[in-house]
Amino acid sequence: MKKILLASTALIASAGFAAAEVTIGGDGYMGVAYGNLKDGIFATTDTSATETAPGSGEFVSDYSFVYDLDVDFKVSLQSDSGLTFGASGDFDDLGKSQGARGFDNSIFVSGDFGTITMGDINGAAEQVIGDLAGVGLTGLGDFNENIFLVTAAAQPRGPVARYDYSVSGITLSLGLTDDSGYNVGASYATDLFSVGLAYEAVADGATVTVFDIDALGSSAGGSSFTATAPNGASQVIGQASVTFSGVTLKGVYGRIDVDSATIDTVDQYGVSASARFDAATVSAYYRTVEPDFKVAGTPSDDFVAYGLGAERDLGGGLKLEAGVAQAERDTVKDTLTVADFGVSINF
Amino acid sequence: MKKILLASTALIASAGFAAAEVTIGGDGYMGVAYGNLKDGIFATTDTSATETAPGSGEFVSDYSFVYDLDVDFKVSLQSDSGLTFGASGDFDDLGKSQGARGFDNSIFVSGDFGTITMGDINGAAEQVIGDLAGVGLTGLGDFNENIFLVTAAAQPRGPVARYDYSVSGITLSLGLTDDSGYNVGASYATDLFSVGLAYEAVADGATVTVFDIDALGSSAGGSSFTATAPNGASQVIGQASVTFSGVTLKGVYGRIDVDSATIDTVDQYGVSASARFDAATVSAYYRTVEPDFKVAGTPSDDFVAYGLGAERDLGGGLKLEAGVAQAERDTVKDTLTVADFGVSINF
Amino acid sequence: MKKILLASTALIASAGFAAAEVTIGGDGYMGVAYGNLKDGIFATTDTSATETAPGSGEFVSDYSFVYDLDVDFKVSLQSDSGLTFGASGDFDDLGKSQGARGFDNSIFVSGDFGTITMGDINGAAEQVIGDLAGVGLTGLGDFNENIFLVTAAAQPRGPVARYDYSVSGITLSLGLTDDSGYNVGASYATDLFSVGLAYEAVADGATVTVFDIDALGSSAGGSSFTATAPNGASQVIGQASVTFSGVTLKGVYGRIDVDSATIDTVDQYGVSASARFDAATVSAYYRTVEPDFKVAGTPSDDFVAYGLGAERDLGGGLKLEAGVAQAERDTVKDTLTVADFGVSINF
Repeated sequence: MKKILLASTALIASAGFAAAEVTIGGDGYMGVAYGNLKDGIFATTDTSATETAPGSGEFVSDYSFVYDLDVDFKVSLQSDSGLTFGASGDFDDLGKSQGARGFDNSIFVSGDFGTITMGDINGAAEQVIGDLAGVGLTGLGDFNENIFLVTAAAQPRGPVARYDYSVSGITLSLGLTDDSGYNVGASYATDLFSVGLAYEAVADGATVTVFDIDALGSSAGGSSFTATAPNGASQVIGQASVTFSGVTLKGVYGRIDVDSATIDTVDQYGVSASARFDAATVSAYYRTVEPDFKVAGTPSDDFVAYGLGAERDLGGGLKLEAGVAQAERDTVKDTLTVADFGVSINF
Repeated sequence: MKKILLASTALIASAGFAAAEVTIGGDGYMGVAYGNLKDGIFATTDTSATETAPGSGEFVSDYSFVYDLDVDFKVSLQSDSGLTFGASGDFDDLGKSQGARGFDNSIFVSGDFGTITMGDINGAAEQVIGDLAGVGLTGLGDFNENIFLVTAAAQPRGPVARYDYSVSGITLSLGLTDDSGYNVGASYATDLFSVGLAYEAVADGATVTVFDIDALGSSAGGSSFTATAPNGASQVIGQASVTFSGVTLKGVYGRIDVDSATIDTVDQYGVSASARFDAATVSAYYRTVEPDFKVAGTPSDDFVAYGLGAERDLGGGLKLEAGVAQAERDTVKDTLTVADFGVSINF
Repeated sequence: MKKILLASTALIASAGFAAAEVTIGGDGYMGVAYGNLKDGIFATTDTSATETAPGSGEFVSDYSFVYDLDVDFKVSLQSDSGLTFGASGDFDDLGKSQGARGFDNSIFVSGDFGTITMGDINGAAEQVIGDLAGVGLTGLGDFNENIFLVTAAAQPRGPVARYDYSVSGITLSLGLTDDSGYNVGASYATDLFSVGLAYEAVADGATVTVFDIDALGSSAGGSSFTATAPNGASQVIGQASVTFSGVTLKGVYGRIDVDSATIDTVDQYGVSASARFDAATVSAYYRTVEPDFKVAGTPSDDFVAYGLGAERDLGGGLKLEAGVAQAERDTVKDTLTVADFGVSINF
């Protein structure tokens, strides 16, 4: 629930200001999480807890409190000729929004020509493809999120600029970054189904994240896998989803052409289902990433994750949420298990 | 004075939002401080000022401007079944509130069962014991504040979770942290008096802060004293206060069982008085911390601090405030003296 | 355009709060910039871009997106006796506003006696002299800004305290910092013209920034020039401006007495013009800084910059802005050229 922080029209008018909407809202959660990768994944100073290796002085726990609070703002105005423009974002990201090379939060200008947005926003591919259904209070590592090459965080930090044009359920998007990265996407959506297709390319020398297993912040057991693409990298990625009787099914398939020293391509695919019954919602996903190595006989290093979550809407912006997710990597012997439970708020 | 940033009810209703209160307020001060520990305590680039040691290139001054500005938010909502929930905090702490392992600001859910709060909040002991009356514009080193073992800042940073239940002037509190730290407290308060008692325990290997003399931020002359408790540490702490004719007297006594290599226990006790006459308030405190060493003949290392402050309320949220405090440590030859004067604002 | 985030008077009154104005506003821009100092100035990971030196592994581009977003607050209240007081600043600066040694944003108290302000504010010299007219979306390196010795950022970080008294178009200002820096200024302004004169002095050992060429954040090609003043430094600086038919002309001249090991004095002077035609504004400046070296025959190291900008107001807080600026330093062979274009928003 967002608050419209609008003075009464009379007051604004008397002060000579045009009517404008500034909304301040936010969201957060509090709860507990379980995490295990053979040992617990949460660092603790409790020396009676499990020591990762005898004498290491590093102690870990299976349990941790989880907590998050965001406060955000949104502004929308109109120019004399009827262009709509404004900005939105989180208060805590304003430090990284500072110019001239800021990149966080976002600014937009919109008119008959479409919408131009710049900042820490989705690229065109992420805009038309999105992610699989997420689970849990915390996202549980966000393993439901697809890999996109063109993002604000990638490479020397700079904003993403994106142009969108929508008509009759069709959306066309074009995204650009400073580093010669670009992507194009198209989607078509009705009440029943949606499909999307995107192509993206990044510059010579780009670093491609194949996967990044970081469950619940700076926990133990993280594992990331990146590759350098000397001649640039590209991805073709598509999605299809269908919604009926409160159930949404979604499937995504993408192929990244990395052509690094050791990796030829990376395939990512996954499916998710989300079903709403009155005030309850149940979601699940399965997702895998499969690097194809150039040298025959290289041991496979596939990544597989699956998750299951449930939430109950208590009304007014309060929800009970719970979830469990597992992630496996071929070259890592143990399976990461994370689960959480708690309340989320939205205001 | 807090601003209620509420749209007119008509506007909110027309937009389909439930009525909700979002308040934005803040506080701050500006003034001057004096600080001396044989030499001045404030670093300066003025090479005609006092040099801490000949040739050291470090110059200090007895005087400094002091300044602080906080802007905060508060939100309270209701679920369908009548639970009250929301969040509050400072805008500058939102960066450290980010999940899943955020810990700053706070979220609460409240109902007939009591209140559950998580974030950078008081533990149960601090909640029922509190601090002695503070003095000065800046707090002057906050030497009036008692030591508590269970806090959000302690150990690997994580939130404190606390459960409170209040009925007929009685408050029961239970606090927990990730690192197996917990505390329980109970208080009883009437208009005339209040009493409180708490017990807290932290895990094996916990670091206990005996005292931390840091006057006015990163000034020279700081002195901190910590001990590691291999088998955990615990504290029993109690307070009593009485209020009559605008005068509040308060006394606190606590004993921390450290059992470190060199320290057996630490006693902390103190008294304060605060008297209000019309728009003026005068406050004073005396507080001491006494480590008890295991080896006979170890020189004592007691800490003693006392402070005196006065403020005058100018109305509308503006106050004149002044204070002076002194702190001594047995093993440090010189006495730290700090004083300040200025205006504080509250909005 | 600033939003007045005021509850309807009825609501505020019913809650027992005094009427008070809290305004939340902001500004930002998005666009593209060109920058060249023989090679491009913007770092890129694109290895097909220009490499600064063969084999260096550092690649630069002539182009970059530019982006900025600020959200700010302002509060003004009244004490019982009619003093006006309050605070203002940017949300992203609140972290550095924290006490007791905070210095960012600002607090003020104002009455018949004048106004006292503390924080990250103009010193008295900057207050009565100001800068030359700026150009471009981003400021293009802000080469139009004059050098002042007394600022909040200078030396060990601390706030500036300033006292202003204005009557009949005359403003008298006195500024102070922790490090024995101070300045005094006086200005006189009518609708037609303004003149200002200021003197400032900083302490023994102060570091004087002669110039600091940093175009558009942390770009390549930066060049800064500082000098240490063992016996303190001082500046006399004056400005005159005249406005007629929508055109404002301004000239500034300042002499800094550095008396460092190698530099005797530094002269800075510049002129700017800004003309408004309906919704369009065109601005230009020329500015130079000339260090006078003590040893005869030292090669000159003058700094010269000039800029040209244009903007078109689209109404409602939206503007199109463009500009170009060049900067040269005698001891650097190549000329820095920066240009930008985009939209700015103000809310």
